[in-house]
Amino acid sequence: MEFLFQQLEMHYDELVEIRRYLHQYPELSFQEVHTPKFIADYHKKLGLEVRTGVGGRGVVAKLKGGRSGKTVALRADFDALPIQEENDVPYRSKVDGVMHACGHDGHTATLLVLAKVLASMKEQLEGNIVFIHQHAEELQPGGALAMIKDGCLEGVDVIFGTHLWASIPVGEIGYRSGPIMAAADRFHINIQGKGGHGAQPHLTKDAIVIGSQLVTNLQQLVSRRIDPLKSAVLSIGSFEAKNAFNIIADTAKMEGTVRTFEEEVRDFMEKEIERVVKGTCLAADVNYSYSFMRGYPAVINHEKETMFLAEIAKKIPEVTNVFEMEPVMGGEDFAYYLQHVKGTFFFTGAGNVDRDIVFPHHHPRFNIDERSLLIAAKVLGTVALAYLKKESFQIKNS
Amino acid sequence: MEFLFQQLEMHYDELVEIRRYLHQYPELSFQEVHTPKFIADYHKKLGLEVRTGVGGRGVVAKLKGGRSGKTVALRADFDALPIQEENDVPYRSKVDGVMHACGHDGHTATLLVLAKVLASMKEQLEGNIVFIHQHAEELQPGGALAMIKDGCLEGVDVIFGTHLWASIPVGEIGYRSGPIMAAADRFHINIQGKGGHGAQPHLTKDAIVIGSQLVTNLQQLVSRRIDPLKSAVLSIGSFEAKNAFNIIADTAKMEGTVRTFEEEVRDFMEKEIERVVKGTCLAADVNYSYSFMRGYPAVINHEKETMFLAEIAKKIPEVTNVFEMEPVMGGEDFAYYLQHVKGTFFFTGAGNVDRDIVFPHHHPRFNIDERSLLIAAKVLGTVALAYLKKESFQIKNS
Amino acid sequence: MEFLFQQLEMHYDELVEIRRYLHQYPELSFQEVHTPKFIADYHKKLGLEVRTGVGGRGVVAKLKGGRSGKTVALRADFDALPIQEENDVPYRSKVDGVMHACGHDGHTATLLVLAKVLASMKEQLEGNIVFIHQHAEELQPGGALAMIKDGCLEGVDVIFGTHLWASIPVGEIGYRSGPIMAAADRFHINIQGKGGHGAQPHLTKDAIVIGSQLVTNLQQLVSRRIDPLKSAVLSIGSFEAKNAFNIIADTAKMEGTVRTFEEEVRDFMEKEIERVVKGTCLAADVNYSYSFMRGYPAVINHEKETMFLAEIAKKIPEVTNVFEMEPVMGGEDFAYYLQHVKGTFFFTGAGNVDRDIVFPHHHPRFNIDERSLLIAAKVLGTVALAYLKKESFQIKNS
Amino acid sequence: MEFLFQQLEMHYDELVEIRRYLHQYPELSFQEVHTPKFIADYHKKLGLEVRTGVGGRGVVAKLKGGRSGKTVALRADFDALPIQEENDVPYRSKVDGVMHACGHDGHTATLLVLAKVLASMKEQLEGNIVFIHQHAEELQPGGALAMIKDGCLEGVDVIFGTHLWASIPVGEIGYRSGPIMAAADRFHINIQGKGGHGAQPHLTKDAIVIGSQLVTNLQQLVSRRIDPLKSAVLSIGSFEAKNAFNIIADTAKMEGTVRTFEEEVRDFMEKEIERVVKGTCLAADVNYSYSFMRGYPAVINHEKETMFLAEIAKKIPEVTNVFEMEPVMGGEDFAYYLQHVKGTFFFTGAGNVDRDIVFPHHHPRFNIDERSLLIAAKVLGTVALAYLKKESFQIKNS
Repeated sequence: MEFLFQQLEMHYDELVEIRRYLHQYPELSFQEVHTPKFIADYHKKLGLEVRTGVGGRGVVAKLKGGRSGKTVALRADFDALPIQEENDVPYRSKVDGVMHACGHDGHTATLLVLAKVLASMKEQLEGNIVFIHQHAEELQPGGALAMIKDGCLEGVDVIFGTHLWASIPVGEIGYRSGPIMAAADRFHINIQGKGGHGAQPHLTKDAIVIGSQLVTNLQQLVSRRIDPLKSAVLSIGSFEAKNAFNIIADTAKMEGTVRTFEEEVRDFMEKEIERVVKGTCLAADVNYSYSFMRGYPAVINHEKETMFLAEIAKKIPEVTNVFEMEPVMGGEDFAYYLQHVKGTFFFTGAGNVDRDIVFPHHHPRFNIDERSLLIAAKVLGTVALAYLKKESFQIKNS
Repeated sequence: MEFLFQQLEMHYDELVEIRRYLHQYPELSFQEVHTPKFIADYHKKLGLEVRTGVGGRGVVAKLKGGRSGKTVALRADFDALPIQEENDVPYRSKVDGVMHACGHDGHTATLLVLAKVLASMKEQLEGNIVFIHQHAEELQPGGALAMIKDGCLEGVDVIFGTHLWASIPVGEIGYRSGPIMAAADRFHINIQGKGGHGAQPHLTKDAIVIGSQLVTNLQQLVSRRIDPLKSAVLSIGSFEAKNAFNIIADTAKMEGTVRTFEEEVRDFMEKEIERVVKGTCLAADVNYSYSFMRGYPAVINHEKETMFLAEIAKKIPEVTNVFEMEPVMGGEDFAYYLQHVKGTFFFTGAGNVDRDIVFPHHHPRFNIDERSLLIAAKVLGTVALAYLKKESFQIKNS
Repeated sequence: MEFLFQQLEMHYDELVEIRRYLHQYPELSFQEVHTPKFIADYHKKLGLEVRTGVGGRGVVAKLKGGRSGKTVALRADFDALPIQEENDVPYRSKVDGVMHACGHDGHTATLLVLAKVLASMKEQLEGNIVFIHQHAEELQPGGALAMIKDGCLEGVDVIFGTHLWASIPVGEIGYRSGPIMAAADRFHINIQGKGGHGAQPHLTKDAIVIGSQLVTNLQQLVSRRIDPLKSAVLSIGSFEAKNAFNIIADTAKMEGTVRTFEEEVRDFMEKEIERVVKGTCLAADVNYSYSFMRGYPAVINHEKETMFLAEIAKKIPEVTNVFEMEPVMGGEDFAYYLQHVKGTFFFTGAGNVDRDIVFPHHHPRFNIDERSLLIAAKVLGTVALAYLKKESFQIKNS
Repeated sequence: MEFLFQQLEMHYDELVEIRRYLHQYPELSFQEVHTPKFIADYHKKLGLEVRTGVGGRGVVAKLKGGRSGKTVALRADFDALPIQEENDVPYRSKVDGVMHACGHDGHTATLLVLAKVLASMKEQLEGNIVFIHQHAEELQPGGALAMIKDGCLEGVDVIFGTHLWASIPVGEIGYRSGPIMAAADRFHINIQGKGGHGAQPHLTKDAIVIGSQLVTNLQQLVSRRIDPLKSAVLSIGSFEAKNAFNIIADTAKMEGTVRTFEEEVRDFMEKEIERVVKGTCLAADVNYSYSFMRGYPAVINHEKETMFLAEIAKKIPEVTNVFEMEPVMGGEDFAYYLQHVKGTFFFTGAGNVDRDIVFPHHHPRFNIDERSLLIAAKVLGTVALAYLKKESFQIKNS
């Protein structure tokens, strides 16, 4: 570990430099050209086996160790967001309306510099390390699924990934076994009533009244039908039925989101929302349309690998706190990797109140404390090495 | 008319005497024995053609006029109510828990004495008068339907009836063409959810929540689905789901009433309540039972006969006001007669604030100003005679 | 009457001609210039006393009879609508986007020609006739109120007015004592919740859920709080809360209309809507704004004058049916005249299915059967003359 | 440990015998006479320092160790339930309608026999052990609070307690740091509307409609106002408004329960339920009464002590599985002890499907696999001894 830590510390300036370079040239999801080329070139220079265009625009680099052993994958996503940066920094985005406002620039820099250091330790490696650089995490259907179909997990035994997280102070690591990020789904409901004059309700089917009953009736799904020890959110973000004041609405359009952690709760919500829509519309004798569009599934961390990671994290000198965190209701397509291989996704603190690094992800003033890059690299590097060092890898049944 | 009025005035004492006699010996609906016998004996003494046991316990007496002509029916009901009288009067009910608290004693006395006077005018009568004494008006399914099936309206051209009414001052007559009394129906709804512990809602189907949604959803029937120029009432009088506080209810029982004036509104309500129940239960994935029990239909007065009656009423000296009244939301099985022959049902004022005759029908202190008996007899007698006097009977198309 | 009828028939061509002329040059409410000048010139030529600019743009012409007596006012409105005519007729509107789509051209022609004929009968007139030509009936606050303030009803004993009505067949006259047209009011409600991310409802106050509860709770006003024998309509025509699907709405905007016939029901609705809004928002701990904007009050016909008009109407040869009509839920500022003097507003049938005159008022293909002009003139002329002929005017207390 | 285990095994028969004896003579909460006497006598015979009548009917026995050290408290409750036993066993309850249907007989036996064994090890004890025998756990306000006030925790450093649990198989131990049992509160709501006849809703304030709106509106508290990652249950178990079908209800009575784990969520629910009641009643212009009666608070286990217990439990030979369990939504007044001293409450599996020991707590056929008594005694004994053995007690910061 000593060597790894020392080397990473020595490359800290490069870490920051790469991150800032990428920050200035962000690219939108499914439109990444420059970034994957930059990544591929970097790995090629290190002498790694590189595949490009994986699942579309992904890059996979493989470091074969000097000795045989298991294969560990480390993943970083590299797409940016359609946001106009409002930070006044020298490395500010040079692309109008596009910004690395979620830290993927940092994820990428971390993996590249870690690859450089690990490549220098190649001979001692008792197995292989695969660096998965994923495009398009921010936009459904995401890049992970396509990269997996294109073989990025072939031969991989375990996967680790992290998210730099601005609402956790730098120096802290958050882990959680089981669900750590939610499934984030979307639905549309259209009530097809019958319009008419506001003075003659009996000749109409009032879509606003029916839609309101529906919104009200739907509340009972979470309050009555979900195990109180489990989580589910059903939010209707949009209710549209704009007409003249003296008209009765013929249609009401609703859109909303469902967040869940367990697949059976997710299935239940999809099915039961439709039941409530159907029943409410039957009661009012009107037609409806309903569609439920699945987003990323929940990120479900594997227990042994998570506890292993947590133990490792405690050994990193810069890490001041390793804590079991509450799940986050947002989504991540890292979820798909964990459906195929064991592994864990954890959060690396990147916030710093003293330096005003306090803005949430997807905010025009989002930023990270760059020391988090070094910490992330140390944790990922250490966990990879430790995992490969078979004899030391004993995860107890806690 | 002069003779009729004179004669009725001369028999006023008898009118009061008969009413008070009947008042002391009230009989419950479908249990009348003494009253119909009394009525039949009275008519027989007058020499009228009498049929007893009509439709069960009804009495029909026919006065054949000296000249041929049309046949007018006059109807009075004679059953009493399961109420303990609280009036302190010499003629107070002698039957514990039974009382003429709706004025049927007065209706009967009016018809009997009117028959006596008209019998004395028999030779001049240009047609016939049928006195329909009906049992069991107060209790569903009522006596009217059975009496009609048993022929009480055979040969009848027109029917008139009145209700002595304590909330109208004596001296006034209320008429209304079209609906004057509502159809009064009843319904039961049972929500069959799934009970359980209050701490585990997800293992239950909460019948209280579902029943509450149902009550709420049902409000839109009247507010949105009924023509605002028409009337409909839907009231749920009973909501029962009594359990321990920490239990989730498996059933919720509801009972209510629907009041309407038009048959199509009535049909609509019966059908649409079920639709709302069905839809609400489908939305909640529970079973239900629903039953809708029709009471008497609305009393729908015929226009010509109503206006004829109103014109006649204006000519009675004691009548100080003849007014078009608002419909009454209560029910009456006089409705059935008007489904078979033309006619009208009107209200004869019997209240008197000065004499403390102010208690509503079905109240233990209900009473009538007995001068209303004379007025009712005069109006009914005059309308019958006028109707038979063909040449004078011209009801204009207003 | 004979002379009046004969003269009006002789002037039928002029009646049609004037109506068609006005139809070609429609003017919007509060923008009338040409039309009031045309009206004033016409009356001046007849030798009547004419006031212009009454209450803004109204015209009042007074015909003083040869003998002293009462003063009858007849009213016609003369503004048009912002509608593009789609009728293919020789007298089609020559003004783009403006159309007499409500029959006010006919009302005006009727009154002008009637004035001409009555002016020729001046000497026999036992009183005076005031012709009130009102601007701006179609647009709140209307012209009536300003004209009244400006003295148009001074010295007037009674007022009559009619609406040519396309959904009643030509030849029929609809009357109704009491409320004949509804008060038509408008309201706005804004729910001010607290927005946020769809995954974090607990940090928000969901304006869509609260607005939906409000819409649902409001249903009980009509279903539970209004006398079932009275009418009230509460319709929410617009519900706006458009956001991204994964957002929780911070505001929900609602607009709607209330229709009532009695002033106390109107007051009740205004007050009780606010109570429900206030309570629902208190329950959800959010703020709101509520405004209730009164439109025209209900048109309440006076009973004697209405029955008088109905009797008169039966005597017009072309009138095939005089019927008591159901109230109309729409509004009219004739309401204000009836708050100051006795009178009645009635409907003159102007529809004709055989000639495809079937389109509703305010429709681009609205039209009238022009024979209705003659009928309207005859009814208005006769009622005015009959009213002035004191000895014949005996309205019985029905 | 070897000696402790050996001794407990040797006393297994006594363990069973005592439990069965107590089972036959159950006593209701706050009515315990025989049981505390039995307990006190037992401890006195062992030579322990015994206090009776603690906090009412509790018994506290203190075993002073031969060496100085910390003081560990072990707690068992001893009241029974008003349930008629339906088990057909030789040791069936001899008291009609009273039954140990929650395992408190077992808790007591465990503690007594454990005391006997530990008393025999007195000299080696490096500290003291306090045996807290609590009355009235089943009935609010419970015995714990009064016993604490009466000093039962004086000098105590840590407390451990367990519940024999029939839905966990014998051999398993469930632990959980933080909330393990819910706060179980109760509330009453009375809607005071205004009754009347079902046909005249406008003269009433319909308590059933208002109550239904309330139940519906309350659903949003859990669905919208509670952090989806936290738990809260609001169940209305009783809704009473029983009237004749044609009456409008003047009152609706509701009773329900709230379950929460965090005190701030509990406070929030208490306050927000009232807000919804208040707003809903304001909207309907009616009065209400609301009362919220707090039951036991949530049982919140201390982290270090819990993890210590879990580690200890793994060392008991009969224990086949030690698992982190989900919280239980039921309540326990053990909560109060943990508000004063550190400690943990855990669940000792006592179910056995093969032997038909499957009935839930409070069921007339509830029973336990008696081997659980030995396991509970071993875990409690070991954790007490280990805690006192200072040098070995190092709870790491996990």
